[in-house]
Amino acid sequence: MRATVIHGPHDIRIEEVPDPEIREATDAVVRVVNACICGSDLWAYRGVAARVAGQRIGHEFLGIVEEVGSEVAGFARGDFVVAPFVWSDGTCAYCLDGLHTSCPQGGFWGEVGSDGGQSEAVRVPFADGTLVKLPKETAGEEKLLPSLLALSDVMSTGHHAAVTAGVRPGATVAVVGDGAVGLCGVLAAHRLGAGRIIALGRHGQRTAIARTFGATDVVAERGEAAVEAVRELTGGQGAHAVLEAVGTEESMRTAISIARDGGAVGYVGVPHGGSAGVDISQMFNRNVTLAGGVAPARAYIPELLPDVLSGAIEPGLVFDSTVGLDGVPDGYRAMHEREALKVRIAF
Amino acid sequence: MRATVIHGPHDIRIEEVPDPEIREATDAVVRVVNACICGSDLWAYRGVAARVAGQRIGHEFLGIVEEVGSEVAGFARGDFVVAPFVWSDGTCAYCLDGLHTSCPQGGFWGEVGSDGGQSEAVRVPFADGTLVKLPKETAGEEKLLPSLLALSDVMSTGHHAAVTAGVRPGATVAVVGDGAVGLCGVLAAHRLGAGRIIALGRHGQRTAIARTFGATDVVAERGEAAVEAVRELTGGQGAHAVLEAVGTEESMRTAISIARDGGAVGYVGVPHGGSAGVDISQMFNRNVTLAGGVAPARAYIPELLPDVLSGAIEPGLVFDSTVGLDGVPDGYRAMHEREALKVRIAF
Repeated sequence: MRATVIHGPHDIRIEEVPDPEIREATDAVVRVVNACICGSDLWAYRGVAARVAGQRIGHEFLGIVEEVGSEVAGFARGDFVVAPFVWSDGTCAYCLDGLHTSCPQGGFWGEVGSDGGQSEAVRVPFADGTLVKLPKETAGEEKLLPSLLALSDVMSTGHHAAVTAGVRPGATVAVVGDGAVGLCGVLAAHRLGAGRIIALGRHGQRTAIARTFGATDVVAERGEAAVEAVRELTGGQGAHAVLEAVGTEESMRTAISIARDGGAVGYVGVPHGGSAGVDISQMFNRNVTLAGGVAPARAYIPELLPDVLSGAIEPGLVFDSTVGLDGVPDGYRAMHEREALKVRIAF
Repeated sequence: MRATVIHGPHDIRIEEVPDPEIREATDAVVRVVNACICGSDLWAYRGVAARVAGQRIGHEFLGIVEEVGSEVAGFARGDFVVAPFVWSDGTCAYCLDGLHTSCPQGGFWGEVGSDGGQSEAVRVPFADGTLVKLPKETAGEEKLLPSLLALSDVMSTGHHAAVTAGVRPGATVAVVGDGAVGLCGVLAAHRLGAGRIIALGRHGQRTAIARTFGATDVVAERGEAAVEAVRELTGGQGAHAVLEAVGTEESMRTAISIARDGGAVGYVGVPHGGSAGVDISQMFNRNVTLAGGVAPARAYIPELLPDVLSGAIEPGLVFDSTVGLDGVPDGYRAMHEREALKVRIAF
């Protein structure tokens, strides 16, 4: 089969690789229907996150089950499924707590020795603990696929930011980051009943999606000016809940500074700035909580799926480009150069 | 009257100062019955926290109301009261939310221009929003006074650590810091139903109090060895809730490292180490929450008071020394040299 392989910074290739096959009795093999490129893939693309040359890449996909191991109970050939961005056994204490990302037997698609999602097929470890079944007929609903695909990561991650920031009905929410995750954070906050949602962003296409997703205000400023703008919008107090979806030192500093006293920052941007942006004295004096982390998408998909199926939320609007597998290397370039917000791969 | 005044590092004096008097209609004047020296006062004593020469000091006291302003509705001459360690107006959005420490009209006893608690009397701004009434007859109950006094700060602060760390019935809790606040954190965790409480400390007198307060395990190691010891005690997982009651870089690093994935650190030690101890990548990968801050004692006292009055909790056991006002300078020295755990001042 063919798969996306990363050989080094800015060196993404489509190559012939061995077909995946059942290795453990708990495995499944899934034929990919849709996959996509994530903002976090760009850290590897840019060489900021190290990868071994030849590693697979891609961690978001929808697919059809092709084969299951003898111990897989919940899935059969022909099932339509969505994969969260990590696999998990579904039986450990962490999985039972809903923190599948801490499963000791879990792993991340594309890590050395595993398949990546940006490929024709994927071997899925612990299929029962990992995959979530989708209604079969939706596999043919072109309009629905992007939103189902978004459950793999960006919508679940935006939801995690909203949940860990403590978004409640009526709350004032601010979202730092106008990438796909930030936009899904806006959507998640709106879904949870936020009264006011301030999106920080300056790109017209993105802030338009933010408005569609429920943002009531847009702040184009950055850094100190952004802090002032949010404070002005909130009577000097800041937001009850701040969703941080960037991961840099500056974005964290901004996020903490625009939180209301007693409020919380839910951060889901993979940290690339160390802790220098975490002003612990400011947090202490103002009782600002810092929560979040890598999102347990597997725990959230069952909750979010009905709203996707009903059309109540349409996170798939974050995809503004669709390519075939051969178009993936150019998709990376386009996202890197901010020509594209998020690229979907249709097989 | 006589009051404790700080002139510089290691220079604490008892001096004659003007008697406090009603300045605003919302003021009260309180004659102090009991006060104490706080671990956080030592930061000023050591010169780590800057003070203007001649500033008052002390922020924990019990007293009898001597006089009230014309707009004070809830208190009258002769009332026995406890003061939380900050004053607050009781009417702003933050006070109504229970976050009195963020009251825009609030302040900290001993800040420039205000009275300190380690003195014969105190002018109390916003008496209605600040003070909490105690049963009159308890003013004469010598055995109860230390525990009532502990509500001013250390017991409320230990409780804040437990609440913000999310202590729940059955939870495994670890407490970093064996000072009065850490010990009260043990007591607060026990009161909230923790199933297991691991106290980190190595001083026999203090760990004995920790055991009395409900600690089930004591870890004498520090740093990496402490992390290993707690992991070993918890089947490799760490504690659901970690109470950080020190405020240094090392203590924060330890606290985050011994939290279970998905758990929380409730930090109440005044931060003196910057954010270098906050390992944001570790927090992200393991979904560890960092919450806490300066404790809104005014919000907690009404909840904790009945348990003190009934004897269900006895936080006053953290006091191991009692002095008169003239003994205060030596009390600072004794606490600084760790001869005393916490010094009470009886008038």
